[in-house]
Amino acid sequence: MKYKDYADDIAELIKRGQLRGGQRLPSVREIGRQRGLSPVTVLKAYHRLEARGLIVARARSGFYVAGQPRQTLPPPARSRPSRRATPVRKSDFIYEILRASKAPDIVPLGSAFPSPLLFPHARLNRSLSRVSKQLDPWRSVTDLTPGSLRLRQHIALRYQIAGVALDAEELVITDGAMEGLNLCLQAVSQPGDSVIIESPSFYVALQALQRLGLQAIEVATDPQTGIDIDALQRVLQDQRPAACWIMSSFQNPTGASMPEARKKRLVQLLAQYGVPLIEDDAYGEMYFADQRPLPAKAYDRDGGVLYCSSFSKCLAPGYRVGWAAPGRYSEAVTRLKLGLTLSTSLPAQLALEDYLAEADYDRHLKAMRRSLCEGRDALLHALQSLVPIQSAVTRPDGGYFLWLELPPEVSALELHRRALERGISIAPGDIFSVQADFSHALRLNYGHPEDRRINRALKTLGELVETLQAEAQA
Amino acid sequence: MKYKDYADDIAELIKRGQLRGGQRLPSVREIGRQRGLSPVTVLKAYHRLEARGLIVARARSGFYVAGQPRQTLPPPARSRPSRRATPVRKSDFIYEILRASKAPDIVPLGSAFPSPLLFPHARLNRSLSRVSKQLDPWRSVTDLTPGSLRLRQHIALRYQIAGVALDAEELVITDGAMEGLNLCLQAVSQPGDSVIIESPSFYVALQALQRLGLQAIEVATDPQTGIDIDALQRVLQDQRPAACWIMSSFQNPTGASMPEARKKRLVQLLAQYGVPLIEDDAYGEMYFADQRPLPAKAYDRDGGVLYCSSFSKCLAPGYRVGWAAPGRYSEAVTRLKLGLTLSTSLPAQLALEDYLAEADYDRHLKAMRRSLCEGRDALLHALQSLVPIQSAVTRPDGGYFLWLELPPEVSALELHRRALERGISIAPGDIFSVQADFSHALRLNYGHPEDRRINRALKTLGELVETLQAEAQA
Repeated sequence: MKYKDYADDIAELIKRGQLRGGQRLPSVREIGRQRGLSPVTVLKAYHRLEARGLIVARARSGFYVAGQPRQTLPPPARSRPSRRATPVRKSDFIYEILRASKAPDIVPLGSAFPSPLLFPHARLNRSLSRVSKQLDPWRSVTDLTPGSLRLRQHIALRYQIAGVALDAEELVITDGAMEGLNLCLQAVSQPGDSVIIESPSFYVALQALQRLGLQAIEVATDPQTGIDIDALQRVLQDQRPAACWIMSSFQNPTGASMPEARKKRLVQLLAQYGVPLIEDDAYGEMYFADQRPLPAKAYDRDGGVLYCSSFSKCLAPGYRVGWAAPGRYSEAVTRLKLGLTLSTSLPAQLALEDYLAEADYDRHLKAMRRSLCEGRDALLHALQSLVPIQSAVTRPDGGYFLWLELPPEVSALELHRRALERGISIAPGDIFSVQADFSHALRLNYGHPEDRRINRALKTLGELVETLQAEAQA
Repeated sequence: MKYKDYADDIAELIKRGQLRGGQRLPSVREIGRQRGLSPVTVLKAYHRLEARGLIVARARSGFYVAGQPRQTLPPPARSRPSRRATPVRKSDFIYEILRASKAPDIVPLGSAFPSPLLFPHARLNRSLSRVSKQLDPWRSVTDLTPGSLRLRQHIALRYQIAGVALDAEELVITDGAMEGLNLCLQAVSQPGDSVIIESPSFYVALQALQRLGLQAIEVATDPQTGIDIDALQRVLQDQRPAACWIMSSFQNPTGASMPEARKKRLVQLLAQYGVPLIEDDAYGEMYFADQRPLPAKAYDRDGGVLYCSSFSKCLAPGYRVGWAAPGRYSEAVTRLKLGLTLSTSLPAQLALEDYLAEADYDRHLKAMRRSLCEGRDALLHALQSLVPIQSAVTRPDGGYFLWLELPPEVSALELHRRALERGISIAPGDIFSVQADFSHALRLNYGHPEDRRINRALKTLGELVETLQAEAQA
């Protein structure tokens, strides 16, 4: 379409600095003559650029490049859920959305996983091969849940080095963090209980609550700095939740990370009210700053923090090896695991044991963090010129998700449907909340830096958003 | 102890046929002179042999070898549980019993696992090594639950060959049969529902019921031929259970197998009442007869049978790879799996895929069945002369468990405690029932044929039983 091509050309000139803030654009008539475009086409192009905030119209004077090339998109505001306990009945909806996005030829902007190419497969395979040469048959008995002691020692050591006093004895090896979280939740709750979650929260938490017959209390959460402690305190003052389930660093879906002081206050506050904290730290190793952020578990004094993480996001996807450090619920979680899946797959446990002992895990992590950070920057940069200026976006300090809030008139669910038709997945905000407060927000995955289809897909998304906006305004 | 030595000598002579039925034993005085034993010692020895049914006392005439060397121990009678739905609150008790038996230096007569030495580790390791050379990174995405399609095809093919029309599309790969059973149970029940189980039943069923807040309806079960269909029908007539959970072949703990006609009737009856059947067939491949017994699933016409099995008992313990064929609940089970453990460990799935394609699985199975069958015969033979004549025992046609009922005055729980002190585990009957109907029964594992400590351990068990009996009579 001609107006889009012209608009893209102008946008490119502005981006490169060849057209500067305040500079007047050629008049509609002038440019029409030069490029052989009708005045209507030129006007459509200018309105498109105006909607993106790149140019401004001045009355009776024409169009000018905006004062700065473009305002940086601001971060989204804190969420404002109702604080009442609500039964969770979203699982089927969530699965349908997720399944639709699963086909391998879909551009994975809505995916929950980073690119498999970010992991050290060759080195992991070497460990697997070594295991295959020396596997002691009796380890299927000795390494039953809580799992391989040496593996647990390697894991515990990494925490101790990072400043978290975690003992191998407390750890239970689980089938990914997901099983750990499910077991921890079950260990502290009874059907009918209510559980505090973030707003928005990871849909796996919603599914777990629904499966266990629990109600959700969604608490106001800042998409940059995490759950609002004052709002949490108000809930604790007048309700009796069985637990609080939080991702304290690089939250899925927003990418939010709680400042350390807030994590500490969170732990103290929950301890004061006797409410166990279930902490999902699946992305803790994927930080972009200099240091690993301490998890809330670091401030646990009475064993009330049930901490879960795994190797699935940072080292070995598909192995399904995670761990729980369930504090004073360690025995309860061990028993639940013995009755649910008995034990975690041995070849995977032993290969990771070998990898941690022999390979340079930290070097891999550094490289992976760099890729993800570049992915984040590239995505943020692209979004600046592709989405309406009224949008807001988070700038996560780790992980591989960011959270984009579009203008209220754009339905993320409708965007999801139309994007899918074009071979692109997104994760619409509706799957991250019991009460669907996020119908114009979406989670985007920047963990596929090598996928060459991404740029074109983002452009398509921008156009779809524009169309939806136009339809809403019509 | 002298009297035991003498009794053992006589028992050996009877066993070898050197003393025959009806033959008179030397008088107390005579043998006392010959062996330098006091009359009291000789009498104690004769009473011991009498208690075991090897000799009989005839009034005023002395002791004679019993008519036949020894009556074969009869099979135990059908159980007679109350049919009312009962909340399950046994998990902690079960775990404590199981944990006590876990130490590696304990003789594993109470173990739930066969010897790790019965499995083809070298060949499995070769498959694992091949996988490590060719693992495609993208399989962590493409092989997400329901799992590797090629693995599911291999599994389905084995059923088709055995005469069970099972399609790869129906299969969901799970973390062992145990996860499959838990997922299937959850797919068909809500907290508060009741579920039909056998009496006795595998404790994992009890734990699953408790975890999901379900009640148990225990139904009369014959330790040789399985659940009583008439008793089942009476339950169905006046209760509304959410499901029925059965091990139809080589049941844990009794070793019972339902005749095929009974399996068929079971499926028809449950279908008639609209009650889903959860079938645990973990031991189906471990048959001692010529043919694999058909599972109840073979008679499923409306997708109401949720069938579960795994490689853990017959090929690869520690891999934690099982499968469910959940009939019309396939989609529901897939979704639950995606939210509970996401997917089953990939190295294990792929190694088994390679093994099934390249190795001679059936040759391994034949060898393993032979070892287990020999283990069964050896254990039955030993029990004949070691336990009181009022005992009863099952003679399973597969698997590696048998069920021993001791005289009512012998507490299996007390036997468990005393055996543990002597470094021997047994599985007391109390952990296989909600209402503890089996306080004088126990499950014995004959799946450790290479363990040289077993014979001595059985002798010790026999002595402990004798002591407990004497104490009860005192």
